[in-house]
This record gives sequence, structure tokens and C-alpha cells, in this order.
Amino acid sequence: MRPSRRAPNELRRIKLTRHYTKYAEGSVLTEFGNTKVLCTCSVEERVPRFLKGKKTGWVTAEYGMLPRSTHDRMPREASRGKQGGRTLEIQRLIGRALRAVLDLEALGERTVTVDCDVIQADGGTRTAAITGAYVALVDAIQYLLKKGKVSKNPIHGAIAAVSVGIYKGEPILDLDYKEDSDAETDMNIVMNDGFAYIEIQGTAEGHAFRPDELQAMLSLAKDGISQLLEKQSAVLSK
Amino acid sequence: MRPSRRAPNELRRIKLTRHYTKYAEGSVLTEFGNTKVLCTCSVEERVPRFLKGKKTGWVTAEYGMLPRSTHDRMPREASRGKQGGRTLEIQRLIGRALRAVLDLEALGERTVTVDCDVIQADGGTRTAAITGAYVALVDAIQYLLKKGKVSKNPIHGAIAAVSVGIYKGEPILDLDYKEDSDAETDMNIVMNDGFAYIEIQGTAEGHAFRPDELQAMLSLAKDGISQLLEKQSAVLSK
Amino acid sequence: MRPSRRAPNELRRIKLTRHYTKYAEGSVLTEFGNTKVLCTCSVEERVPRFLKGKKTGWVTAEYGMLPRSTHDRMPREASRGKQGGRTLEIQRLIGRALRAVLDLEALGERTVTVDCDVIQADGGTRTAAITGAYVALVDAIQYLLKKGKVSKNPIHGAIAAVSVGIYKGEPILDLDYKEDSDAETDMNIVMNDGFAYIEIQGTAEGHAFRPDELQAMLSLAKDGISQLLEKQSAVLSK
Amino acid sequence: MRPSRRAPNELRRIKLTRHYTKYAEGSVLTEFGNTKVLCTCSVEERVPRFLKGKKTGWVTAEYGMLPRSTHDRMPREASRGKQGGRTLEIQRLIGRALRAVLDLEALGERTVTVDCDVIQADGGTRTAAITGAYVALVDAIQYLLKKGKVSKNPIHGAIAAVSVGIYKGEPILDLDYKEDSDAETDMNIVMNDGFAYIEIQGTAEGHAFRPDELQAMLSLAKDGISQLLEKQSAVLSK
Amino acid sequence: MRPSRRAPNELRRIKLTRHYTKYAEGSVLTEFGNTKVLCTCSVEERVPRFLKGKKTGWVTAEYGMLPRSTHDRMPREASRGKQGGRTLEIQRLIGRALRAVLDLEALGERTVTVDCDVIQADGGTRTAAITGAYVALVDAIQYLLKKGKVSKNPIHGAIAAVSVGIYKGEPILDLDYKEDSDAETDMNIVMNDGFAYIEIQGTAEGHAFRPDELQAMLSLAKDGISQLLEKQSAVLSK
Amino acid sequence: MRPSRRAPNELRRIKLTRHYTKYAEGSVLTEFGNTKVLCTCSVEERVPRFLKGKKTGWVTAEYGMLPRSTHDRMPREASRGKQGGRTLEIQRLIGRALRAVLDLEALGERTVTVDCDVIQADGGTRTAAITGAYVALVDAIQYLLKKGKVSKNPIHGAIAAVSVGIYKGEPILDLDYKEDSDAETDMNIVMNDGFAYIEIQGTAEGHAFRPDELQAMLSLAKDGISQLLEKQSAVLSK
Repeated sequence: MRPSRRAPNELRRIKLTRHYTKYAEGSVLTEFGNTKVLCTCSVEERVPRFLKGKKTGWVTAEYGMLPRSTHDRMPREASRGKQGGRTLEIQRLIGRALRAVLDLEALGERTVTVDCDVIQADGGTRTAAITGAYVALVDAIQYLLKKGKVSKNPIHGAIAAVSVGIYKGEPILDLDYKEDSDAETDMNIVMNDGFAYIEIQGTAEGHAFRPDELQAMLSLAKDGISQLLEKQSAVLSK
Repeated sequence: MRPSRRAPNELRRIKLTRHYTKYAEGSVLTEFGNTKVLCTCSVEERVPRFLKGKKTGWVTAEYGMLPRSTHDRMPREASRGKQGGRTLEIQRLIGRALRAVLDLEALGERTVTVDCDVIQADGGTRTAAITGAYVALVDAIQYLLKKGKVSKNPIHGAIAAVSVGIYKGEPILDLDYKEDSDAETDMNIVMNDGFAYIEIQGTAEGHAFRPDELQAMLSLAKDGISQLLEKQSAVLSK
Repeated sequence: MRPSRRAPNELRRIKLTRHYTKYAEGSVLTEFGNTKVLCTCSVEERVPRFLKGKKTGWVTAEYGMLPRSTHDRMPREASRGKQGGRTLEIQRLIGRALRAVLDLEALGERTVTVDCDVIQADGGTRTAAITGAYVALVDAIQYLLKKGKVSKNPIHGAIAAVSVGIYKGEPILDLDYKEDSDAETDMNIVMNDGFAYIEIQGTAEGHAFRPDELQAMLSLAKDGISQLLEKQSAVLSK
Repeated sequence: MRPSRRAPNELRRIKLTRHYTKYAEGSVLTEFGNTKVLCTCSVEERVPRFLKGKKTGWVTAEYGMLPRSTHDRMPREASRGKQGGRTLEIQRLIGRALRAVLDLEALGERTVTVDCDVIQADGGTRTAAITGAYVALVDAIQYLLKKGKVSKNPIHGAIAAVSVGIYKGEPILDLDYKEDSDAETDMNIVMNDGFAYIEIQGTAEGHAFRPDELQAMLSLAKDGISQLLEKQSAVLSK
Repeated sequence: MRPSRRAPNELRRIKLTRHYTKYAEGSVLTEFGNTKVLCTCSVEERVPRFLKGKKTGWVTAEYGMLPRSTHDRMPREASRGKQGGRTLEIQRLIGRALRAVLDLEALGERTVTVDCDVIQADGGTRTAAITGAYVALVDAIQYLLKKGKVSKNPIHGAIAAVSVGIYKGEPILDLDYKEDSDAETDMNIVMNDGFAYIEIQGTAEGHAFRPDELQAMLSLAKDGISQLLEKQSAVLSK
Repeated sequence: MRPSRRAPNELRRIKLTRHYTKYAEGSVLTEFGNTKVLCTCSVEERVPRFLKGKKTGWVTAEYGMLPRSTHDRMPREASRGKQGGRTLEIQRLIGRALRAVLDLEALGERTVTVDCDVIQADGGTRTAAITGAYVALVDAIQYLLKKGKVSKNPIHGAIAAVSVGIYKGEPILDLDYKEDSDAETDMNIVMNDGFAYIEIQGTAEGHAFRPDELQAMLSLAKDGISQLLEKQSAVLSK
């Protein structure tokens, strides 16, 4: 049995709160159980240097954890003077995932910066971030459409993300911190609404995972992502 | 008339929410109108190098703003690789203010780190941070007392902070962002519950302020702080 | 009695030496007793990025201490790779104070950088820096007027700064290092020649200060600044 | 047809040269076609702080590219003052992969640092790095066994890594730079000699990949890794 | 007798391998015995900011050591976040030496960046770097001449460099690491093909060196450089 | 004729002012004409990590220029976040030169840090720094001898430094800024009181220098250093 007493294929309570803060063009508080990530999208009318004059826009992401979002306080990255490898890895992942469903040329010469800040961490912050950031991105694009700055919706698909793993030999969905700490394998999967893969990142923590375990995890992930896509759709239709 | 339509001596709606996050020994969401600051206190059983073996504890503060807590997105300090001068100034102020009401020897050889993270900024983030951090500190000390780690309460007074200013020639209390941007003078005041001063920081932005203007601002600040001390007291007695 | 054997309202020996170095447009060695600060003003025909094309100039300050200006050697900030919070705080203060008496538009699209470097530190380096930097600024502006680069004097007032404090319960003026170390309260005040306040920064080090103590310190500061303004005036009229 | 004219399931010419430099305990020049990575293992009789006194060793990796290992010169990370996100991501991957086949307790309280430096880059540097680093690690462990510092071989499996991708709709093995630039999907896979997965990292660059494409890539990877494991085995038996 | 058993005036085995890597405009593996330095020249069609619009080009050098090029592993400068003083000193020396034989105006508005990366270090890496970098520079300039980007050869002389020292009281040529560690004096000399000096850097490590010792070292250096210039000439004529 | 109207072998006015500041164990204002460098020696009862427990002391130097010590203001290194290559090169040179005349074991387990800060720069700051730092070091050692912390004088020689160059084809001594800017060759020489060489650093700026030019410069340098050693001796005997 899982420490969280959930069924192997059961997601945590998912909650997406739109318009959580008032200035950002998109702002979503994303909750996967006790994991809480604030995802904001900021539109700026400029592009990074490498895209200047190329008639295309850019979507980029930044990720951070409040120092006491975790069980023990972590040093503040701003005070240490640099972002760690894990932070850079996660924000590169979030950016890539969102760019996979957005036509950068249709966005026009502007940048959407997605900030994913972890208020409380209980495992799965990166998958929560991607799932919520997609909703915030939709809101930011709606803002641009309403303002007439963009004429055609540059978003051509939905994405959501979830973690899966092998815990005491059994494949489980959406690991919380305790489960993740004890898992032998941890995999993060991003899929689109056509159930094709955007990103797969699987790591054997304890023992290498067999092909049949991989298949079982892929199957769980698909089920989880299907539910997450529905949650996004429901909250966006309000 | 103030842009906020408040009376000159009127505070914004003040809300202090204890236990806002679940891991920190003290965790208070502080709201001064639209300004929202999460103040957490983390207890660690170690002291900085300069206090090693001196049989005394330490209280220190760190301050940060989420990149899109503001009207326009600000660059993330972790990504720029250093904390700016304003950030350092504010976190030094918060730390000094809290140390002024805490007996570091009675705390014992441990450190309380106070993180003040701005979720949404509408002026007065540093005074909100100090006012809320005091409540979080009380909770963290209560935790230590309950655990038996500290035998005598090291807190020997209460503190609160508020801003005052001269707006269109008139002294006003608790400036929001719009008022602050147009103010000729801006002053942050920290007082204790004996109504003595812990810190006064006044800056002439537009024109230098006369002694009578200073006295009027000091008087407004005292009234505001008196109300804030009551709010703290009320929320702590729950 | 004060360790320095001075009367409570007595300044240290003040000495302002103009043209101390030969390249800077303004260069003043400022001595408040054993505290020695070299203040230079450098004029550059460019403005920072945020002012480009705005038809206005800029005045900014930088502050540094020689490593062995102090009793014990301090690590060199250039070698540590960053300026500390105290340094940033002081240089922000100096810049703000000077901008308060200078019309940036009348200065034209150029920058005056004020470098305040402490050769020897015995308390009150920031107030000495401001008092001397004002004189160096006047010299730099005179240079611009003589060169015909500026047609109208952009300086519209004089400023000086002094520290006050509560030492063994008594308010005193212009604290040296020893007095400052033992003071219960330390306050730095910048005023203009109309005796209005440019900046007030007061901190309770030991015990909070009462309103009557604040008033006594404000009164001492006014007297001290009055004398400093006369010193500046005398040295500038040579 | 692939730009490299190879069959879809054909590796590049693989060459592993042991003892390439003379000081390192393990030193292997790894060539995957024109991609050349120097992998050295350095044994140091100390462990990182977080492992002190825990009676366990550590294996960590660092990755770098010579500035002109690539078609266009890249800025030197040492001169830019920090390692980029891609570098950190790759060196974390290499370290994790090697730790997956090594018993850190059996290694004893020492650190093996694996440096993977790219002399020439033509795609697949991270998979070449892992494949060669494994051989260098075996040599370094042999050195420890011969010296009697380690009594039992801490390596409990072999690993190799290869990239697979979808190029013009077709799954291909071991992409060179040109193929990688045009691929729609890029996946790096690390497996052990029991053909279980150590790491899977797949990213949709152009279009999301379907489950059947994933399965085809996994199958190609297994074939490639099988050949790489044989190459390692052959070169180690000399 | 020298530890290397060489005669006092005997160079190590010198080997210069052109076209060692395939992308750089010039690429030379330079071997002075066991010291191996890869020197690449990269041509970029831009100049640094301080030369913009001045109708002149630039030659600059960067130097690095692979972490395990040395007997004991050295920390990677990219990971430490800065280049050390020795590195900066060496790369400034290499750049100055090459600029001494190149007409920057004739080069045109472009930059040649010379990267000298030490694969294996056994003393004399900086002199090997200069000697090999000259050959790589010739190749890069030939590339520009062939492409018609430069019409007149901007190189107006050849340079080579060698170290000399006093070992156990006797002057010796081309010190290896062991000899260098025990030498009382170490001197690096760069000369051109007219046997005039480009750079002399001599340091007394143990005891100060007398004028007659200086003269003996200068004489040895001239002989060594004469042989190195012949080696360069021979390899370039192939 | 030299721009300074001095004879080719004529030093500038040299002035060494001991006890220039009051806290340092040695403090000398060194003037070579308009070049003014403050050299302080600070004694600290600790050694760097690499010398711990080795029963030996350390002498190290740091060098800095006040931002407006030069004709045009230079950016402050503390604010840029790092020391430049030239600064590191000079401070390494000063440290090496002083260590050449000091027995580190006789110094005992303590560190002398020599800070050379340029107040005004008119060429030759590094040679002025070495010449003055030697005097400050003697004072610091005298302090240790008087305090009984050191029983035997660890200084076993005197050193001084001067620059020489080729200006319009003629060898000249002690170049000022204007001469240095136009010189074809610039050489800094450090010698001891036995007229043996501690350090020679010569660079061809314009054209390579011939052996006969080198000899002429060496001869000038010896004369200059002879006079500097006398100045040091005279000022130390007061």
C-alpha cells in the first residue's frame, strides 16, 4: 500500500485556481495535493537577442522554490548567487514543453515568460508546474487575442504532465514526496491531448527498470494525463 | 483626496493568516490591502560562524519578490546572480527590527531565519513583512517552548511597522503603490508596544520635508502602529 | 563623559581639502577627526540606459573602504567578488542625498559619478562622505559651467550630514567609532540649507528610543549641520 | 536516406582508446565517428561534505566542451563565469548513470571524479561520454584493487548509452550533428548489461512522438547498446 | 645532471601536428615532450566593442587546463566560476605575443580567438602554447587569404617561446615539471625570427639570479628558439 | 627629449611617508612623481588553509586602483564583481617579490597582507607599490619584533623596483604615464640590495627589442634601483 493510501492509479486532489494574482496576464495556483505552485505568464513586447528581427516570438520559463517550501529550509538561490543544476533542468523542461504546443511565429515578436514558483513542495513540483503553466499560458494568449495584439491563436494543442514510478515493485501514479524518496524509479511524462509524447524523463534511482515496468508506467501516465487534461479543460471553460 | 479614497489616517484592510504553509515553524500570510507577503520562520540548530561557541542564538531575515508580484515583471534575482541593493537593505532592516525584541542569549545556540517573500506588491512590502514576521516569530518561539528547547520566552516586546508620507502636501498613512509613486516623502517606521522607536527611515523623494511635516508623520505612524499591534495581538490570541 | 572628551554637542575637527587629487573634476579629502574620506566627482558624457534619450542627466555614488582603513583588516570587496549590503546601502544613500539638491534636467545628458573612498575610518564615514561629496559636486559643476557645457547651475541647495546618537542615556553629536560601538541608538541625518530633512535613518541598537530622545537628537543634528554648512561655504569661497 | 548514409540501425565507427593520458587513474578517448570525448577518472581520498563520516564513497561527473570543438566557436564557460544549464544537465546525467552500477559503500570513503571533455563534437557527446566513462571507471577501480585500497570490486554491472531519434518520419540510431539538428525527436537512453533501463530522456523537438514511434526507438536503442557493450568488453579484455 | 637526463641546452622532443581537429580555421596539437597543448584559431567576423568602427581587427587568446591534465586533479575553472590569476596571466601573454607579429589593420574588422587547451601538462605549457599557436595562426590566416577575405598577409614575422631556468646552479633549457618544481629561477622568453625579444618574464623562485646567470639563460633561450622556429617552418612547409 | 623633460637616467621625485594611516602595522604613502600608492601591511594571526600546521607564515599582496585615480574614471572592480587580469597579475608580482626577501618560517604562523591602493596613477604604479611595500613590511616586522611575537628578523634583504623602457629609440628610466603610452618597450625590474634580479618582466609594445637595447635597459634599471634602495634606507633610519 502507498504511504498516501491512494490506489496505484489515483491522482492526488488536483486544483487549478485561475487569476490567483492580479498583475500577470495569466496566473494560476496549481495544487497537486499539498504541492502548491504559482504559475504566472508575463507578456513582454520584446524578444531575446538571438531572435531579433526574425519575426517570431519566444516562450521561456523560470522555476524557483521559496526557501521554506520544503521540510527543511533550503538556501535561497538569489542569495547563493546562482541557480542550481536541478532548477535549470526543470525550467528548461517547462519551457520546452510549452513551446511544443505554441506556434512562435503566430505569437509575433514578443516573449511570454512563465514563472513557476513553488509555495509548498510535496513531490511532483515540475509536473504540477507544467500542468498549471499551460492554463496560465492559455489565459495570457486570450489576453493578447482580446487586445488584438495576436490575430490567430498560436496554441495548437493542450499539454499536461504527471510523474509515475516504481514503489516497492509496483507502478504508481503521481508520487508525493514520501513516495518519491522511497521509489526505485521516477519518471516524468509530458503528453499532449493527442496522447503523443512531448517529453519522457525516467531515472532508475535504486535498480534499473525492466521493459515491462516501463510499459506499465507509460500506461499509468496516460491515464493520469487524461484526467489532468479534463481538469484543465473544465477550469478553462468557466 | 488619496487615490485609494482612504482617509489620511486610515490603514488598508489588514489580514494576518497564521499557519499558511505547513512545514515552517512559523508561517504567516500578511496582507496590507493588495500587498501580500508570506513570512515564514525556520528554526535551525546551528549558528553562523561568527557566533560559534558564544552561547547565543541569531535571528536573520531574507527578502524576495516573485518576479511577477509587480505591475511589470522584474528579473529574478536568482537568475541575475545577485540580490540587488534594495533587497539587501530591506532584509537587513527586517532582521534588525526583529532582533530588537528578542533576547538572543535566551534563544540558545540556534538560528531563526525569517523569509519574507512578496507574492503581490502594492506598496509597503517591507512594513507588511515586519508586521507579519513578528507574528511568525512568535509562533516559531511557541514551537520551541512547547518542544522544551527553550525554557524562557526570549521575546520581550512586540513590534509593528508602517509607512507614512507626504502626498500632495498632506501627511498620509500606509501608502499603496500609486500613492508611494507620487509621494514627495516616504518614511518607514518600526515601533514597539511601548511606542518607542526601533527604526526610522525617511527619504525626501521630491522636496525636503520640514520639521512640522516630520512631526505630523510621526504622529500618524504611531496611530497606525497602535492598530497593527492590536491586529497582531488579536490573531495571536486565537 | 564621552570617550572623545568632547561636549555632547561638539563636532570633531572638520577639514575639507579641495583639489586633493589632480584628474577628477571635483576632488575633496574630507576629515571628521580621524575619519578620512576621499570624495571625487567624475563627469562622463553619457547616461545610464534607463535615461537614454530622456534629456536628463544622472548623479550616482559609489562607496568603498580601503581594506586597512579600519582597526582590523577587512576583506577587499573586489576580491570577494561583491559589494556587501552595508556598502550598497551607503552608496544608495549618498546618491539620493546629492540628487535631492540637483536639477537633473539642467545637468544635461551626462553622468556625475561620486566616488567616496574611505582612507581611514573612525566612525561617521557616510556622513563625512555626504558632506565632502557636496563640495566636490560643486567643483565638478563649476567645471562644467566654465567649460560652457552647462549654462545654468543645476545645484539648487546645499546639503550636509551628521550622525547623532544616545550614548549612556545622553544625546550626543558626531559619534566616533568608539562612541558608535557603545551607543544605544545611532541616527544619520541629512539636511539642506533651509534646514529641511533630506534623509533620516535612525536605528535602535540597544534599546528603543523614546520620542523625547528623538527630538533631542534632531535638535543636536540641526546644530551640527548648521556648522558643517558653514565649513563647506567657507572652503568653497576660497 | 540518412545524411550520414548509414542504415537506420547502424552505429558510427566506435573507438575506445584506453590510457590516452598518463596521470589519470582511468583515461579513455571515446570516438563515436567524429565525436571525440576524453573521459578521465580521478581518485581522491576524500568525500564531499554531505558524506563525511558515512562510510561511503562518491562518484561525480563534470562535462565541458573545448570552445572550438564545435562548428562555430562557443564562449568558454570558465570565462563566462558559469556553467550553462545544458552542461549541468549532462554532467548530472553522467554521474547518475555511473552511480547506478557502482556500490558506493564498497568504494570506501573516496571520490571518483569523472571528467568528460569534448575535443570534437559531432552529435551524441553525452552518450559517447557515458559509454567511455564506464571504461575509464573500470580502469580506475582496477587501479584501486591493484593498490589494495579496495578489496571487493564495487562495480556490479556494465552500462552504455546511445541516442535514437525520428528523422524524416523514420526511427534512426546514433544521430550525428546534422541528423540531430533536423530530427523531430531526440532520445538518449542508458541501459545496463541486463538490458534494463538506467535513464530515458526523450524530447519532441518538432512534433510529439506516438507510442509506436517510442517503441521503435526503444528497440533500436537496445540493439545499439548491445553493440556498445561488446565494444567496451573487447577493449577492456586487452 | 637533469632529472630528464637531457643536456643543459637540449629541448624535449617537439612535435607540431596541424589540422588536429576539423572545424577550427587553424588547429595544432603541440607537444613538448609529455606536455600536450591543443591550439586552435577561430575566425569571427566581428570585433570587440572597443574596436568597433576603427577599421582594425583583433587577436586574443584564452588558456585552459583540462582538470586532469596534471598529476593531481585541479578544480575546473568553469565550475569554480572564475579563471584564476595564473590563467589570466598566461592568456594575456599569449595574446600579446601573437599581436606582436600581426598587423591588425591588415587583418580587417575580424577577430581571431586563439584557444590553448592543455591536454597533458609536464611543464612549459605557456611556451608550448605560444609556439604552437603561431602555427595555428598561420593556418588561419592562410584560410582567410584563400577565401579572399584578406588580401595581404598580415603576419610580418615568426615567433616561438621557450623556458629557461637555473637548476642546481646550472642554466638549463626547456624545463619539464620536475625540473621546474626544483628550479631556483624560471624564465619564459618569446622571440621573433630576427632574434629580438617580444617578452621576457623571469622570476626568482629560490634565490635571486645574478647578471651572469641572466646572460647564460638568455643565450640558452636563443638557441632553443632558433630550433623551434625551424620546427615551425618545417611543419608549415608541408 | 622625454615629455617629462627628465634626463634618460633620471628618476622622478621619490617620496616615502611612513605611518601614513594609523591602524596598519606598516603604512607608507609612496610617491613616484604624481603616482601615489598607499601601501599598508596588516598582520593577522592565521595562515591560509594550504599552510595550516606547516609552521610557516605567509606574505600576500592585494592591489587596487581608486576609480578616479586615472585620467578617465575606471569602473570599480568591487562593483563589476571581479578583479581584472592586470590587477591579479600585479598583486601576484608584489607578493612574489616580497616573499623573495622574507624567511616565511622565521615569520611564524601568521600572515602579512600587503594592500597597495593607488590614490593617483601616473605610470609605474606597480614599481612604486613594491618599493613602498618593502618599507611598510619592515615597519610591520619591527612591530612584531617589538611585541616579541617574532624573535629573529625574517627579512634577509632589501628590494626595490623600477620601470625602464625604449622611448623614441632611446632607453629611459622610470616612465610616467605619457612616456609609457608612447614607449615601444616597457620593462619592470625588481632587484635586491645585492643587485641580483628578483623579477624581470619586459614586453615589446611596438617593436621587438634587440639584445643591446635589453642590456641598456638593465643598466638603467640597476642605477635607478640603487637610488631607490638608498631612499628606503634613509627613510627607515629616521
